[in-house]
Amino acid sequence: MTDQQVTPRRQNGIIQPLLTDLYQITMAYAYWKSGKTKDYSVFDLFFRKNPFQGEFTIFAGLEECLKFLEVFHFSNSDIEYLKQTMPTAENDFFEFLSDLSAKDVRIYALDEGTVVFPRVPLIRVEGPLIVTQLLETTFLTLVNYASLMATNASRYRIAAGNAKLLEFGLRRAQGPDGGLSASKYSYIGGFDGTSNVLAGKLYDIPVNGTHAHAYVTSFTHFSELRSQLLVSKKDGKSYDFLESTITWRTELSSVFKVVHTEVSDGELAAFISFAMAFPNQFMVLVDTYDVERSGLLNFCAVTLALNDLGFQAIGIRIDSGDIAYLSFIARECFLKISTKYNIPWFKDLVIMASNDINEETILSLNEQGHKINCFGIGTHLVTCQKQPALGCVYKLVELNGQARIKLSQDVGKVSLPGRKEAYRLFSDRGDALIDLLLRPDEKQPDIGEKVLCRHPFEESKRAYVTPSKIEKLHKIYWKDGKVCRPLPSLEQIRENVAVTLRSLRSDIKRNHNPTPYKVAVSDHLYTFLHNLWLENAPIGELC
Amino acid sequence: MTDQQVTPRRQNGIIQPLLTDLYQITMAYAYWKSGKTKDYSVFDLFFRKNPFQGEFTIFAGLEECLKFLEVFHFSNSDIEYLKQTMPTAENDFFEFLSDLSAKDVRIYALDEGTVVFPRVPLIRVEGPLIVTQLLETTFLTLVNYASLMATNASRYRIAAGNAKLLEFGLRRAQGPDGGLSASKYSYIGGFDGTSNVLAGKLYDIPVNGTHAHAYVTSFTHFSELRSQLLVSKKDGKSYDFLESTITWRTELSSVFKVVHTEVSDGELAAFISFAMAFPNQFMVLVDTYDVERSGLLNFCAVTLALNDLGFQAIGIRIDSGDIAYLSFIARECFLKISTKYNIPWFKDLVIMASNDINEETILSLNEQGHKINCFGIGTHLVTCQKQPALGCVYKLVELNGQARIKLSQDVGKVSLPGRKEAYRLFSDRGDALIDLLLRPDEKQPDIGEKVLCRHPFEESKRAYVTPSKIEKLHKIYWKDGKVCRPLPSLEQIRENVAVTLRSLRSDIKRNHNPTPYKVAVSDHLYTFLHNLWLENAPIGELC
Repeated sequence: MTDQQVTPRRQNGIIQPLLTDLYQITMAYAYWKSGKTKDYSVFDLFFRKNPFQGEFTIFAGLEECLKFLEVFHFSNSDIEYLKQTMPTAENDFFEFLSDLSAKDVRIYALDEGTVVFPRVPLIRVEGPLIVTQLLETTFLTLVNYASLMATNASRYRIAAGNAKLLEFGLRRAQGPDGGLSASKYSYIGGFDGTSNVLAGKLYDIPVNGTHAHAYVTSFTHFSELRSQLLVSKKDGKSYDFLESTITWRTELSSVFKVVHTEVSDGELAAFISFAMAFPNQFMVLVDTYDVERSGLLNFCAVTLALNDLGFQAIGIRIDSGDIAYLSFIARECFLKISTKYNIPWFKDLVIMASNDINEETILSLNEQGHKINCFGIGTHLVTCQKQPALGCVYKLVELNGQARIKLSQDVGKVSLPGRKEAYRLFSDRGDALIDLLLRPDEKQPDIGEKVLCRHPFEESKRAYVTPSKIEKLHKIYWKDGKVCRPLPSLEQIRENVAVTLRSLRSDIKRNHNPTPYKVAVSDHLYTFLHNLWLENAPIGELC
Repeated sequence: MTDQQVTPRRQNGIIQPLLTDLYQITMAYAYWKSGKTKDYSVFDLFFRKNPFQGEFTIFAGLEECLKFLEVFHFSNSDIEYLKQTMPTAENDFFEFLSDLSAKDVRIYALDEGTVVFPRVPLIRVEGPLIVTQLLETTFLTLVNYASLMATNASRYRIAAGNAKLLEFGLRRAQGPDGGLSASKYSYIGGFDGTSNVLAGKLYDIPVNGTHAHAYVTSFTHFSELRSQLLVSKKDGKSYDFLESTITWRTELSSVFKVVHTEVSDGELAAFISFAMAFPNQFMVLVDTYDVERSGLLNFCAVTLALNDLGFQAIGIRIDSGDIAYLSFIARECFLKISTKYNIPWFKDLVIMASNDINEETILSLNEQGHKINCFGIGTHLVTCQKQPALGCVYKLVELNGQARIKLSQDVGKVSLPGRKEAYRLFSDRGDALIDLLLRPDEKQPDIGEKVLCRHPFEESKRAYVTPSKIEKLHKIYWKDGKVCRPLPSLEQIRENVAVTLRSLRSDIKRNHNPTPYKVAVSDHLYTFLHNLWLENAPIGELC
């Protein structure tokens, strides 16, 4: 047990060694039978293609992998279950399994929240083959979705510019934990908050929320209001808030030429009761009946009545219809009231849109123009509809000091053999230029010295790069059975996302037809890789 | 505490009242402030459109909703967190909240695993408005993904016919719990097992697995084998298994005219070691180097050597390449050996395919022909790539005995008001004909008596149906603070999926252009709905 285990951050009981594919356990048995318990292995965890037709990815999930290592131990009931599942396996194997821990494993990884690219190992796992192999599925599960979500969120952040972004996806998430992970990783990707209360409590993320349409439809008339009195912030006296609101509505209906019979009294009753519960944070859904003919007028009447008592409202949410058009109508109305009654903040009220919004919707809204300054985003964000899985893989690259290569008829699937060091090279303007992978025995690149960077598979693609700044990407995060460097807070991870994304040229980050970022190998690694490839590839015979 | 809480089925600690959207709590406060604590509400949980461009859905997640009700209680730390989050709310409200439980709630629901259709309430929740409203998000989270997964799995089941289906999705699932839910709900949808060991342990689902490519690449030569001896099942004596395998391989390479130099010795060493660990369950990946030129020959050699010692192998897995073509090659090879050496079971060895398979891949394989008899399915199954979220909603339909209607400019989004009873009417051949919704005060339909069934929104669409069998769809599952009928086992839910799907005509279930199943309302409900609609719709003025 280490200190990390008692931190207030989330402890998910289902992250345990059995959360894996059975073949990891059958392989462990076969390795054990073959006397391979001491074989020293190196695995790379990486992906081959950026998600969402983009050219970058955010690395996330590292902390959860490290927390998993802390609890990596097969319990007695696990062992009993495995004995039933593998009835022909020898008893000594289960003895061996019940003694296993992650104490002999070493984890090298990039900082969580770093912007990353295909083929660069996000995590390098070293240690006894049986243990490292047993970590595969759980590590992939923890990194794949976390990184996908963080990447998706960061793309929304880029698309939305300065607008506030709130994650509203819990009800459409893939399971309760999918919902929690979505809240956590969308926050590190650049969202400003979530509607998920448990995520707020567990991760200390800002939580937001107003009400549902059901709240509005639960009121039909003013007679359902328990009280009409609200205490003024200005003088501490009680005023008839219902009367004041109705007076304002009558005045406004002539200002905005809205026919009185169309405005819903049930909606106004709901808004009044909500304002009386949250006079300092008044924000309501205005589309239950009709935004233009009812919701907006009722909202403005309540907001003006609140203003008379010294309260400043927050704004409106629109959850249906043509949100670009409605945002213009609403902003125009707010401006008119702001001017007519000389209330400066009225023109800046929040207009939140939350109707089935995705990255493309935001980009299209930007193109056509809109007056929305906050988006609530659910389904598309949390399910990553555009690409619901990141294809991280976990490949053996070295065994007992000998490099291993996974060949494939598909060149893109050939793995980069051996332990590798990774460096990010920057221009004098601070832009990230290229990620360079080296063999471990090579001299590291130096500032101001040109270095040959080669495409790993295409012989003719190569370039000299002279870096003005160099960052070593991998750091050791786990050794001797514990986390060996301070883990960043969620805020620090979020900041790392923002900082590393800023170092990326905007053409790499754009939605449409982005420029690929280059990942290269050193000349030495290139030669090493291709020699090994030739040694291992079968030689055909023409006959 | 009830008995259900101590069953060995999964207890997920994160399913708790704070796993909700903040707006449920802010609404609860506003309701409380408005004196609505005793208002009696009826909510319907339903969806508006079947997923995957299909015409049916499997209802799942009920048991998890009921387990959530059992633990529905705000803890002291929840209350502390909410006080910080809503600093202006009155203290008495938090007192009220900490005393809340689900004891006054009633849950009516369809049996879990039933095939269901748009607009039929899957769950009807009745009780005090504040509590029922607080259940919304959690119920939706628990039903949406469970039903989506079960539906997806059942579609794979229909496509795959009699082939065995295994779920391999953990590493690509949306979080660890997404992986567990995927295993559970794909099993009820008709899968035969999972690779996920924890799912196997928690839900008693069959688990399956062989090995990864890394196992094969971890061997380079026979010298790495710890032992060459295997004890025969026939006579209990030890034999040189390596020698016997090599002899077989030499013979087979002339039978199959495979050039000897191309066959990988590392692969054979890996297969031998795996066979020695699992002589009774030998099944290996044959595509690490080359299926035709290496993997298949090595597999057959080991399998024949095992056969000499009395062991019967299981089969092969192919994870890349043209799986239809390779399955023909493999089956042909197995047939040839079966005949030549007179080993009848050899021709029926399992050929499992597991390379990025989805429903369309299986249908296309069926069209072109193949010899695969087992599919391992991951990413597309667990992420429901074709449609990653089911759009279940939760709508207030009655308050204090008065029906409520949610209007919308989109007719499809208008809700069916009031408490409703639902019946499924069957033909004399046992086919499900139509689902019929009635007002609660109506006489239930009778066998052999014609009943008028109307489209809820299109006046001219109506038909008389004379049912030969009738099923009442809703049953009460929760009252007086506990589950009030025995919950089915996972096997029983799985059986319910199979049985209710069988009652559906095949044109409703087909992948391409399926026939919609009809959901109708009684004449009485039709009139009730449209009168209420007119009463609530604002009247415009032409000017």
